[in-house]
Amino acid sequence: MSQLSFRHLLDSNQIKESDIEKLFALADKYYVRPQQDCPNTILATLFFEPSTRTRFSFESAMHRLGGRIISLEDGQTSSVAKGESLADTGRIMSNYADVIVMRHPKIGSAEELAKYATVPVINAGDGSNQHPTQSLVDLYTIFREKKKLDNLRIGVLGDLKHGRAVHSMMKLLTRYSKNHFTLISHASLALDAESKKDFEQHGCKIEETSDLEGAIKDLDILYVTRTQFERFDKDKLTKANDVYCVNKKLLAQGKKDLIVLHPLPRTGEIDPEIDELPQAKYFAQANYGVFIRMALLSLITNAK
Amino acid sequence: MSQLSFRHLLDSNQIKESDIEKLFALADKYYVRPQQDCPNTILATLFFEPSTRTRFSFESAMHRLGGRIISLEDGQTSSVAKGESLADTGRIMSNYADVIVMRHPKIGSAEELAKYATVPVINAGDGSNQHPTQSLVDLYTIFREKKKLDNLRIGVLGDLKHGRAVHSMMKLLTRYSKNHFTLISHASLALDAESKKDFEQHGCKIEETSDLEGAIKDLDILYVTRTQFERFDKDKLTKANDVYCVNKKLLAQGKKDLIVLHPLPRTGEIDPEIDELPQAKYFAQANYGVFIRMALLSLITNAK
Amino acid sequence: MSQLSFRHLLDSNQIKESDIEKLFALADKYYVRPQQDCPNTILATLFFEPSTRTRFSFESAMHRLGGRIISLEDGQTSSVAKGESLADTGRIMSNYADVIVMRHPKIGSAEELAKYATVPVINAGDGSNQHPTQSLVDLYTIFREKKKLDNLRIGVLGDLKHGRAVHSMMKLLTRYSKNHFTLISHASLALDAESKKDFEQHGCKIEETSDLEGAIKDLDILYVTRTQFERFDKDKLTKANDVYCVNKKLLAQGKKDLIVLHPLPRTGEIDPEIDELPQAKYFAQANYGVFIRMALLSLITNAK
Repeated sequence: MSQLSFRHLLDSNQIKESDIEKLFALADKYYVRPQQDCPNTILATLFFEPSTRTRFSFESAMHRLGGRIISLEDGQTSSVAKGESLADTGRIMSNYADVIVMRHPKIGSAEELAKYATVPVINAGDGSNQHPTQSLVDLYTIFREKKKLDNLRIGVLGDLKHGRAVHSMMKLLTRYSKNHFTLISHASLALDAESKKDFEQHGCKIEETSDLEGAIKDLDILYVTRTQFERFDKDKLTKANDVYCVNKKLLAQGKKDLIVLHPLPRTGEIDPEIDELPQAKYFAQANYGVFIRMALLSLITNAK
Repeated sequence: MSQLSFRHLLDSNQIKESDIEKLFALADKYYVRPQQDCPNTILATLFFEPSTRTRFSFESAMHRLGGRIISLEDGQTSSVAKGESLADTGRIMSNYADVIVMRHPKIGSAEELAKYATVPVINAGDGSNQHPTQSLVDLYTIFREKKKLDNLRIGVLGDLKHGRAVHSMMKLLTRYSKNHFTLISHASLALDAESKKDFEQHGCKIEETSDLEGAIKDLDILYVTRTQFERFDKDKLTKANDVYCVNKKLLAQGKKDLIVLHPLPRTGEIDPEIDELPQAKYFAQANYGVFIRMALLSLITNAK
Repeated sequence: MSQLSFRHLLDSNQIKESDIEKLFALADKYYVRPQQDCPNTILATLFFEPSTRTRFSFESAMHRLGGRIISLEDGQTSSVAKGESLADTGRIMSNYADVIVMRHPKIGSAEELAKYATVPVINAGDGSNQHPTQSLVDLYTIFREKKKLDNLRIGVLGDLKHGRAVHSMMKLLTRYSKNHFTLISHASLALDAESKKDFEQHGCKIEETSDLEGAIKDLDILYVTRTQFERFDKDKLTKANDVYCVNKKLLAQGKKDLIVLHPLPRTGEIDPEIDELPQAKYFAQANYGVFIRMALLSLITNAK
């Protein structure tokens, strides 16, 4: 198995098509049959901001690879209290682990850590900036469910202002031909000018609307985002995110093979009444997440 | 090894005599020689309310079975903060683990989780409601120490109002013939009317007294409970629980083969001066707890 | 492999020269080739005061030995809340683990725990009192880098008043012939009279100065300490610890084979500009720490 094009995964822009090919091929293999390709490999999960789901996804992945875990569940008060720099954390942790997964509230923190770490670093979220494995999970889910990554009409619903993870997914999908995005949001959560410009520079074909019912008819994928309450002032939040709710009535107007994705947790954007419908793929998405993270951990630690 | 009668263990009322037979037989086997019957099985311990002892007992059990752990040590602030429902937690966690042990402050939470989880769920305490593995530990300790589960005179001392775990144990023991219970408590911590009625419906033979010295003479087992300070208003607590203390002087009046049990932690109900006496079995009880939990994890994940 | 002279490691004064020989020999072996000498051994890391670095060092060590971990990351609020005594914690934990590493804010806590535990206890810091494995790490680093433990001139810079770990290291080094200590500190952080007397009783050759530039010329080792902000009143802290900073200019005046050590985390005492110089051994020190802890865990659990 040849190497990935990156040593650390800090930003989804690092991910090349060749990486996606390698990662998806290995994830497919693990999906059929897990293999203990990382025996005795130690993963450190450093969560300076708690995110149980992301942490468990990585830890479950490493366990299935036969590896081992050292974990900082909630570093908000503890470690930083003694005033260690991220540079020193990176150097020290490289003595204790073979690969580091970090979530940190500060933008740029993963990059800083990686500069000094002598083992691979995976960014599991640095503030509102990057969360590249979420983009990998999103793409892998689309690939598993649609058997392709091109010629897709993707609706993105909800908070387009704060949900940067979905921006990364869009940029990655733009590398594949003829993908088209319909951004559906209330005005107060619409895409900002800077992001729009960024998308255009990446060649994304974007359409904006606030009419969900009108938009859904043509979609292959409806990607629903969570309002990032923790990223902005609650007082300024009008009940904007309550405007849209994906339910049975709405899905009845969409294509039969439409799939609905959501990074989870959801906070009301998707009515649980659709959970059992074939369109609902957000729980499958969490499942695929484990296998794509297994592939990433395996390749990034060069286990083979 | 045939199956248990339940898929999830949420309530001690689910435990049938046939389950007890299977669990005790396997626990006995593990007690003599641990076996790695759950290689690569991932246990998720989700503690939305910290309980280090219970968590460690389960984690130690899974480690001895050759399995692996992902752990939420203290989910009070972190996970719930993003507003995920227990239904979604159940579905998501089923992607990360092969069995879930949860403690949660809300009554009914384990049942809710189990409704949506696709892997077995074990209730490690849902508020003041149920903690079925504690009942299993209690019964297994009695079985190991008395070689039987019937024809026993059991004294239950202390907080009979809030200590629901002991109620579960009593109901389970009532299924075996000729067990008799003497409830010993200060009036303010006596059994409430509802629980009393519940016991009578289960056929429990109950006697109530506040005279510990009078009651101890006939007992085979003295089960001492901790005052559940965290479950009620401290201001209302008279020094009721200080009235009783199990000490050498008291034990001198009991049978020679009396055994003293306590779910631990203790807070003054048992004088450490008796810790080295043969009657003191509360530390052995914690030890048996690991083996009965090994048996439960092994059978509930169908490892064989 | 013969046994260590101690059953529990609570105080660095317990460590005999014969122990150091055995530990260093095994650590050297592990450094070349890790061996899974503790398969299925369960280590409990009980941190009633968070210290991610120390916890990870032990956990990484046990993982590399093939063992398993149960971990209390932050026990400040959780476990103690129910009022369990250290005696009971020691007894109960002995059912869940084969060796216990504890950090606790209370002086004497590890000794109390060990009195009741039936498995080995390693003190990973009991308040301002003892942290014996730090001393082992320090000595092992000196041994690896200098190939000897005698005939050394050791400068100790910084907080000599609160930094007890360094006192332990000095006492251990005094057992080897012709070691000489130069204590370099601002007056407000100088050695207290009691400690001075204690050193003299142990036979330490000590010289005191506040002139770092004058002192550095003769040194083989410069041991830099962190100001223990958490151990004393911040208001009383003059900018004393800002007076000294180990930088390139300073090192230019020292011997070529001078080595600089620091227990980390650092808070400004060492300029990162020297991190890449051959003298900087504080990151290597953290690395050696894993191997000496592997040796300790292996010998103390009698794995062979």
